Amino acid sequence: MTTICLKFETEQEALLKIIHEDFELLEPVVNVQYANCREVGWMSGGEYRLIQLSSPVRYMGNPEGLEGQYPLVIWENKACPIIGGREEDGMPKIFADIASERHWGEHWFTSASYECNTFLTIDLERKEELGAGEIAKMNEHSKTNVFGWRYIPNMGKGGASLSHATLYPQEAIATQVWIGEGSIKWNPLTLEQNLVQYSIISTLAQLPVIRFLPAIMMKGSSRLNVGDSRPLP
Amino acid sequence: MTTICLKFETEQEALLKIIHEDFELLEPVVNVQYANCREVGWMSGGEYRLIQLSSPVRYMGNPEGLEGQYPLVIWENKACPIIGGREEDGMPKIFADIASERHWGEHWFTSASYECNTFLTIDLERKEELGAGEIAKMNEHSKTNVFGWRYIPNMGKGGASLSHATLYPQEAIATQVWIGEGSIKWNPLTLEQNLVQYSIISTLAQLPVIRFLPAIMMKGSSRLNVGDSRPLP
Amino acid sequence: MTTICLKFETEQEALLKIIHEDFELLEPVVNVQYANCREVGWMSGGEYRLIQLSSPVRYMGNPEGLEGQYPLVIWENKACPIIGGREEDGMPKIFADIASERHWGEHWFTSASYECNTFLTIDLERKEELGAGEIAKMNEHSKTNVFGWRYIPNMGKGGASLSHATLYPQEAIATQVWIGEGSIKWNPLTLEQNLVQYSIISTLAQLPVIRFLPAIMMKGSSRLNVGDSRPLP
Amino acid sequence: MTTICLKFETEQEALLKIIHEDFELLEPVVNVQYANCREVGWMSGGEYRLIQLSSPVRYMGNPEGLEGQYPLVIWENKACPIIGGREEDGMPKIFADIASERHWGEHWFTSASYECNTFLTIDLERKEELGAGEIAKMNEHSKTNVFGWRYIPNMGKGGASLSHATLYPQEAIATQVWIGEGSIKWNPLTLEQNLVQYSIISTLAQLPVIRFLPAIMMKGSSRLNVGDSRPLP
Repeated sequence: MTTICLKFETEQEALLKIIHEDFELLEPVVNVQYANCREVGWMSGGEYRLIQLSSPVRYMGNPEGLEGQYPLVIWENKACPIIGGREEDGMPKIFADIASERHWGEHWFTSASYECNTFLTIDLERKEELGAGEIAKMNEHSKTNVFGWRYIPNMGKGGASLSHATLYPQEAIATQVWIGEGSIKWNPLTLEQNLVQYSIISTLAQLPVIRFLPAIMMKGSSRLNVGDSRPLP
Repeated sequence: MTTICLKFETEQEALLKIIHEDFELLEPVVNVQYANCREVGWMSGGEYRLIQLSSPVRYMGNPEGLEGQYPLVIWENKACPIIGGREEDGMPKIFADIASERHWGEHWFTSASYECNTFLTIDLERKEELGAGEIAKMNEHSKTNVFGWRYIPNMGKGGASLSHATLYPQEAIATQVWIGEGSIKWNPLTLEQNLVQYSIISTLAQLPVIRFLPAIMMKGSSRLNVGDSRPLP
Repeated sequence: MTTICLKFETEQEALLKIIHEDFELLEPVVNVQYANCREVGWMSGGEYRLIQLSSPVRYMGNPEGLEGQYPLVIWENKACPIIGGREEDGMPKIFADIASERHWGEHWFTSASYECNTFLTIDLERKEELGAGEIAKMNEHSKTNVFGWRYIPNMGKGGASLSHATLYPQEAIATQVWIGEGSIKWNPLTLEQNLVQYSIISTLAQLPVIRFLPAIMMKGSSRLNVGDSRPLP
Repeated sequence: MTTICLKFETEQEALLKIIHEDFELLEPVVNVQYANCREVGWMSGGEYRLIQLSSPVRYMGNPEGLEGQYPLVIWENKACPIIGGREEDGMPKIFADIASERHWGEHWFTSASYECNTFLTIDLERKEELGAGEIAKMNEHSKTNVFGWRYIPNMGKGGASLSHATLYPQEAIATQVWIGEGSIKWNPLTLEQNLVQYSIISTLAQLPVIRFLPAIMMKGSSRLNVGDSRPLP
């Protein structure tokens, strides 16, 4: 797995509007993660790519005090992980074409598009590589609580058949890490270019970027333990 | 919408094994429908393709005595209609690459594949075109009850959060119809070529073909009235 | 075949820089043609899409005085017609992903991208449809001389093994025509996003648009008579 | 670059029919090479995949006595390297969809298809990995003469504007090598499924496989030195 992880500070009020009220925002920060997932076991070593935007939150719906990442959206370029992630784990996954990361010297970049319309571009100026000690230290905190919200609508009337918070613990082990400077650029689509995702893209594109925080590029492996995912009461 | 509709007679026992017990099989017949959907409204006139296998059934779970088609599987080549169809209507939709229908004279054909592995090929020898009177007669029976089963698993343990029959009424109006002779050919994949769909494809590929029944090719339009879909008690 | 044909007036000097000196520019105009080619014979009824930019010229390399279109570039979304068009006819064809035309009411649009990076968007506001008489009149001038330049480089040293003007007569018969207002929008890529096409895209993107001229949308058929193509002495 | 390299012995007579008479066949053997090319410089680190079939030959058209590989066909899944390879180096490149190599344990596999129709499947049972010494020994012979034939037809009449042998020296350095047992399986298409490539695929599919020879899988890097390519007199 190769990932590019950016962060930016945004306005708390704008961000709160798109986070479910059962979660408390810990910091007005958006994490943007691009991942090129290779050697995927359930694909017989196949590959897919994703771009996830998430914010750090605490779940307030029960007394566990769980902290983790709340995904605002996850674009993936293959249908199969989208279906499973939505139905089994409540992940807000939707489809986009996502280019492989490419680079020119230490300038790395990728883009996401829908029907040939680019809506998001990610850039990273890669700087120095971390040493083994620093990576070992990062790997001490390899586990992340990823939250979700499983929403299955009622049929033929309003309301939902299922609507509840979910917890999807994930683990990522880095083998190589570089620090760098990252940025994203939205190219908001018109309504008709993407009827289904228009409001998602334009809402996210309107989150103000106060400043970009330090970014990293990482090679390593990840474990999505579907068996440990659970509904949150 | 351009569709190729084949039918074959199969062994009742083999077919019953893959139809939910709440449905009564009306005939040991499998309908194979390829559709090239163009000018799709919610895609701003975009397009996607599907291949559906279904059998005629009566729903026995309530006293309505509803008759219709029970889809055994629906492959589609875009993620967006798959997600909606599964979660909102209980349709057994999964992903495949599906080629546009092509032809050589009156021999029409298409194929479905997964990661460059063809698993299903559809052929049609197109014969005479129907007259306006015959088409008008067909259009008197333009409505079909399509059944589904909405199954959303529990998280982190066995069992299901949602598991119930669904009804998804559809309507298709033909403007041009040809009769013909059709056939399908399975190329069952190995387990590792498609871990996720292996058992679906191999089960369907093993349904014996006793004989192919008359086929048709059709141009026209279709209405999927999501608002009329409902859970079946 | 469905085509969207735009035109814009540009500065003669800028345009002359990218037209071979053997051609005389007749008007400082660029024609932008998007075509969705379906029912392509040599593809067994398959389909591909193209976007061509061309200008009206007269060939001065011989005394024939031939007038026609000089293609500045032709993007196509399938490799096979690109190879044939380049090697057999000298057409400046290169690859891009090109979306199917879609629309929202009478607003039609499409885009071209490379590795998820949109570089060109085409929009058309479709107005009234032409009557049969007007279409018949258009079809009286159904033939176009398309010029090309067949350039095959020397191997392992400068210069060219082949470098000569070509003539590729084409014919397009309209069955339906709408007039409208069209426009294009460039989104020039960075060098590293498309090393191979960067200078082509940025040169064309820099052609000034003085004004857009009337546009049309057309349905009909086209004949590319490869057998009539010939080198121009 | 990750490559899977198979070999099979075939009948000399069948093979001679598809090798230009200016080349002498050294052994009645066909090499089948799948390569997943990543970090491609002129693609800014992008990727493409290819499947090449070639046989060992000596060029008899001049007194140099050059020995190397004669490619019978090269399928690639991106248009850009196809165009360059054909026009600049005389490589017999054509388009196909080519899946990434995947695996189930030590069983590695990939397929090539055209419009969802698989025509070639490659399988490798990977066995033991070679040691550093053996790899170093392999890398002593890292250079290969790849021959080609640059053929550009005349326009509008028979014959060719260019038709000559080419030499395209290549170099591949292995960093990891495994030995194994490989095989290929053809699924010949019907004429109408692939009008343009039908005779290529069916000719190659008819080459008898007398026996498969030892195969290897290799990770490493490759250098295609276009500057060293030259026409052969």
